Amino acid sequence: MTLSLQDVSVGDPGDDEIVVRIEAAPINPSDLGLLLGPADLATLREGGAGGAPTLTFTVPEGRLPAVAGRLGQSLPVGNEGAGTVVAAGRNAKALEGRRVGMFGGAMYADYRLINVRDVIPLPEGASAADGASMFVNPLTALGFVETARREGHPAIIHTAAASNLGQMLQRICLADGVPLVNIVRSTEQAKILQDIGATHVLNSKDADFEARLVDAIVETGATVAFDAIGGGTLASQIVQAMERAAVRRMTTYSRYGSDAFKQLYIYGALDLSPTVLNRLAFGFQWSVSGWLLPPFLNKVGPEVAARLRQRVADELTTTFRSHYTKVISLAEALSPDNLRAYERKATGEKFLIDPTRG
Amino acid sequence: MTLSLQDVSVGDPGDDEIVVRIEAAPINPSDLGLLLGPADLATLREGGAGGAPTLTFTVPEGRLPAVAGRLGQSLPVGNEGAGTVVAAGRNAKALEGRRVGMFGGAMYADYRLINVRDVIPLPEGASAADGASMFVNPLTALGFVETARREGHPAIIHTAAASNLGQMLQRICLADGVPLVNIVRSTEQAKILQDIGATHVLNSKDADFEARLVDAIVETGATVAFDAIGGGTLASQIVQAMERAAVRRMTTYSRYGSDAFKQLYIYGALDLSPTVLNRLAFGFQWSVSGWLLPPFLNKVGPEVAARLRQRVADELTTTFRSHYTKVISLAEALSPDNLRAYERKATGEKFLIDPTRG
Repeated sequence: MTLSLQDVSVGDPGDDEIVVRIEAAPINPSDLGLLLGPADLATLREGGAGGAPTLTFTVPEGRLPAVAGRLGQSLPVGNEGAGTVVAAGRNAKALEGRRVGMFGGAMYADYRLINVRDVIPLPEGASAADGASMFVNPLTALGFVETARREGHPAIIHTAAASNLGQMLQRICLADGVPLVNIVRSTEQAKILQDIGATHVLNSKDADFEARLVDAIVETGATVAFDAIGGGTLASQIVQAMERAAVRRMTTYSRYGSDAFKQLYIYGALDLSPTVLNRLAFGFQWSVSGWLLPPFLNKVGPEVAARLRQRVADELTTTFRSHYTKVISLAEALSPDNLRAYERKATGEKFLIDPTRG
Repeated sequence: MTLSLQDVSVGDPGDDEIVVRIEAAPINPSDLGLLLGPADLATLREGGAGGAPTLTFTVPEGRLPAVAGRLGQSLPVGNEGAGTVVAAGRNAKALEGRRVGMFGGAMYADYRLINVRDVIPLPEGASAADGASMFVNPLTALGFVETARREGHPAIIHTAAASNLGQMLQRICLADGVPLVNIVRSTEQAKILQDIGATHVLNSKDADFEARLVDAIVETGATVAFDAIGGGTLASQIVQAMERAAVRRMTTYSRYGSDAFKQLYIYGALDLSPTVLNRLAFGFQWSVSGWLLPPFLNKVGPEVAARLRQRVADELTTTFRSHYTKVISLAEALSPDNLRAYERKATGEKFLIDPTRG
């Protein structure tokens, strides 16, 4: 698998289209799946000439079946970004010169031709960096709260909770009065959340983590969890803790467990290893499912999606502000040191690509 | 944990109640959970005097939290059974002397006081053995087909498919025109199903099992599976095969996988080890959930439940016939050899308790 920069020409905009000069595009975990996907990072080899660096990786044979559909294809990367409109079709003239946020892939580029349906004009005074991440994380965080509400869950559990997404979720939950149980892996991460007002923050490395998790669930009534980690046994621990909290409220024993329905959604893959479910401790009323933004938006329909997008635009620099630790050029995204750093997905570390830097 | 026979007195029937002399009660996997539950079978110790045998087991410490609610309690066992009405309350006189099938626990007994709501009168000429298993397996098999229909799945996958339940499911699917993919673990089991007309029977021990499973899913369009095994990787293999079948139909690559929603229900625990999900091969549109008869019946409501029960009564000796390999008395259920045999849950082997044998 080879990563490279390619010269491609951007066509003229159609009636409902614009051409945007991209000034900011974040590197999200959801981008890394496409960017690095099945590659064995230990096999990284540098290549290419000065202005056109390439990085090449070997894909282990066992991972090939899962990516059979992409073999031999050159795939552009970058789910979202922001920039300035430099050309506009007949029906989009009002956007000329405006700064917009965009969603739709192929954002790691100098220019992007895009339908106006997939952009949101930024509020006066907002920078491209402010608008670069206004789709994936904000809509996902709002989607969690919306999902919990629609399915009747009174409170939410979230893992890897100190991420940019997790901080947004905490701010939404505080504003909307939804109890949130945050699970993190260090005291530094716990502090990030406490500083923005989180009341339930648990460190999964603490010896009494499981007991404290059950207590927090009893207190909040959480019956849904959103899990960014996926692999290992944390998902199982969470469902089990929900069941223990439910059993505490029961007055008679049932070998089938509680009648409380417990839902865990896996929306990320920070741990690529298999999910191990100790389901005998769950009772029979449980579900572990995948969660992904596009199908969620499809399911709720255009009106709800528009309401959520409007809230993001309205609260762009407050609830939905993102924090970046490093801004790099397109070419710098192909430096091995940078790649290893953004691939680590360390909490609090976040890369922003600014293609105007070269 | 101690298994024993206890002398208890059965009260007089209330207005809507009857007293039934139990003549047949099956030992289902769903009974073994309560009967043996957390016990370490290797620790079996015999005790008690001649007519009152007891069996005692040690419960490993790690399994204690899951059964904290039942410690110190004497719990009657036996989900379902059939027998003859020997006493009836004011509103139930019509049932006097009739043979009925019953559901509600505590059936491993000589007599059972029960509300008429929880019984079905057997058709003329049906034996107690015919009516002993008219609830758990028949309603579960009908529940699978009903669940698939309500959730829009065009075909079904079933594991441990040569069981009494699996044979009923195959007969229902043939009658209702629902394609069924059966997964078994031996050629003997495959033959049981082929003999009743099954067209898709796969042996999970065959070297080309995975490829054949994908082919069968492509052919039938199955997007839901009911899994009696639970532990290990078979559940994961099934969801992965559904995804591969869906990807085969796609024309462009998506790193998120197919947009086909894939559902696997775990309804049994033939393998007690954890469920290992290789979810990176699932895409994001999937769900693995528990399935249990009582919540299903609650969800569909009394009218659907009545329709399903009526079908069981109508087709008791055809679609829903059960086959027993051994009939034992209550005391014989506490013989170590019998216990080891019914605990094995071998396909095709099925024990029936007849309390009139002593």
